[in-house]
Amino acid sequence: MKRNDSSPSTSAMPITGTTRVFLILGDPIAQVRAPEAFNHLFRRHGVDAVLVPAHVAPKDLEGFVRYVLAARNIEGLWLAIPHKTAMVALLDRCDRLGRSAGAVNAARRNPDGSLEGALFDGVGFVKALDHFGVPVSSRRALVVGVGGGGVAIAASLAERGAARVALYDSTPRRTDAVAHKLSREFDVDVVSLNRPDPAGFDFVVNATPLGLKSGDPLPFDVDRLDAGAVVVDILMKNQPTPLLQACQARGIVAHPGFEMMVQQVPEYLSFFGFDDIAQAVQADPRDVRTLFVSP
Amino acid sequence: MKRNDSSPSTSAMPITGTTRVFLILGDPIAQVRAPEAFNHLFRRHGVDAVLVPAHVAPKDLEGFVRYVLAARNIEGLWLAIPHKTAMVALLDRCDRLGRSAGAVNAARRNPDGSLEGALFDGVGFVKALDHFGVPVSSRRALVVGVGGGGVAIAASLAERGAARVALYDSTPRRTDAVAHKLSREFDVDVVSLNRPDPAGFDFVVNATPLGLKSGDPLPFDVDRLDAGAVVVDILMKNQPTPLLQACQARGIVAHPGFEMMVQQVPEYLSFFGFDDIAQAVQADPRDVRTLFVSP
Repeated sequence: MKRNDSSPSTSAMPITGTTRVFLILGDPIAQVRAPEAFNHLFRRHGVDAVLVPAHVAPKDLEGFVRYVLAARNIEGLWLAIPHKTAMVALLDRCDRLGRSAGAVNAARRNPDGSLEGALFDGVGFVKALDHFGVPVSSRRALVVGVGGGGVAIAASLAERGAARVALYDSTPRRTDAVAHKLSREFDVDVVSLNRPDPAGFDFVVNATPLGLKSGDPLPFDVDRLDAGAVVVDILMKNQPTPLLQACQARGIVAHPGFEMMVQQVPEYLSFFGFDDIAQAVQADPRDVRTLFVSP
Repeated sequence: MKRNDSSPSTSAMPITGTTRVFLILGDPIAQVRAPEAFNHLFRRHGVDAVLVPAHVAPKDLEGFVRYVLAARNIEGLWLAIPHKTAMVALLDRCDRLGRSAGAVNAARRNPDGSLEGALFDGVGFVKALDHFGVPVSSRRALVVGVGGGGVAIAASLAERGAARVALYDSTPRRTDAVAHKLSREFDVDVVSLNRPDPAGFDFVVNATPLGLKSGDPLPFDVDRLDAGAVVVDILMKNQPTPLLQACQARGIVAHPGFEMMVQQVPEYLSFFGFDDIAQAVQADPRDVRTLFVSP
C-alpha cells in the first residue's frame, strides 16, 4: 500500500500577501509541468512561495523581465521555450554552462539587484547518467541534434571531462560554431560530424524532435551502435519512443528523458535559495519522479 | 456541527500551465486578504485561475501594468494602496464611479486589447447598507474623511440617489473639489462642510483612519447624532472600534466595515467574467464573510 502522505499532491500552498512569487515564461505555456512539480514541493516543505505560468511573446520578453522583477516579492523566473536563449542577453551574470551554451533555464534577482542566470538542462542530463550508472569521464559521446537541449547536454559532457564529444545536426553550420565554442571553453575535443554515425561511441543522445510525429525516421542508425553503447532519448512524449524500442530490440541499454528533468529539480531549488528542499529532493527524488512520469 | 465541506479553505487550485493568472498590486502588499478569499472561491468552484500578490513600487506601476498584461494568460489586476488612483491614468476605459472618484479597484484586458477599470468600494458600501436594511434613496448622508474610500462611498451614494451627501475632511480644499465634481456628475446635492457635525443626517460614515491608533479622537461628536441615525465605521482593525463602542453606548445603530468588503467580492468576480461564482457568492456570502472577519 502506498502511504497517503507520500503521494504527490498538486495543490499549492495557500497564497497570501506574504507569498514569494516565481514565474515560468513560455510561448506557448500550457504544456509546462514545472508549476505542478514545484508548487507540490513548496507545499510539502511548508514554504510560502508559488510558481505561476506567464504566456509571454518574444517581443515582450525584455520589458516583461525588467518590470516583473522590479516587484519586490517576484524573485525569479523559469525560462521555457523560446525564451531560454533570448534571456541570456538580458542578464548581468551567467554561469559558465549558460554562457557556453547560450541559454539559461532560470534567472533570479540577486540582493544587489543584478540579474543572474543559470543553465540546468545539461547538469540534469549528466546527473541522470550518474543515476543510471553511466560514466562520462574519458568516454566518447555523440549528441544528435544541436538545438537548445543538445547544446546544453554537450556543454555539460565537456565540463564533466568526456574524452570526446561529437555533434551532429541537420543544420551543419550551427554545429560547427557550437563545437568550436565548446572546444575552446572546456579544452575538450568537441567535433562536428557530417553524418550521425553512432559507431565508436560509448553513449549516444537523441536531442532532436524525431519520434514526436508518427512516421519520423530514427535520429540515427541503431544497427551501427557499438554493442556496449548506452542510448538516451530526451523526448518526453510517445513513451517508449521508436528509438527506445529499436534499441531494446537490439539489446542496447536505452533510457528516456524523464530522469534528466527530475535531476534538474534540485538545481532550480538551490539556485533560488531553497537549499533545504533541494537536499531533500536530491536525497529522495521519488515523488518528483512520479510527478514527471505520470500523465 | 459545522460541515467540513463548508468551512473556508485557503488552499489554491492546483496551478498548471493552463492556469489563468490575476495579480494584486500594492506597496506594501503583505497585508492584502484578497488572495486568500478569491483563491478559495476559485478552488471551491473548480475554476483554473489564481490571484497572486505583486509588491510594485509607484515608479514601476506603468511599466509593470503594460508588460504584465501583455502576457496572454495574465488577464487582470486588483489594485491595492497606493495604486488605486494612479491606475486611472493608464486605462483606456473606466466605469462612471471610477471616473468620478478618480480611483479603481480592478483593471482587466478586454478581448480588443483595451485596458478597462472599475471601482467597487462604493458599490460594496451601498450593497452593505442594503444588507443592513438602511435605505439610501432620498436620505441625507455625511461622509467624514475624503480619501480614496470616502470619495468612492460618496460617489456611490450620489449615484444611488441620496437626497444630500455632505463631505468633511481635515483637508478642506480637496473636499470642495470632490463635492463640486460629484454634484455635477450625478446631479445630486453634494456639499463640503467646515465641521463634521452629524446632526441632521440619516446616516454617517467614518472613512478616516481615526481609531487605528490608541488615543485617536473620535471622527465626529457622537452626542450630536440624530436619535434614529445609522453609523458605519469602515475601519477593519481594532474591532469594535472606539466609534462603534461610543455609538453602542448611546443606543445608535452602528456597523463595522467588513460587509462592504464582502459585498465587493461578487463585483470583482463579475468584472473578470466569473459570473457563476459571482451569483453563487451573492446568493450566499457566508463563507466569504468568514474569510474577511476571521483574523
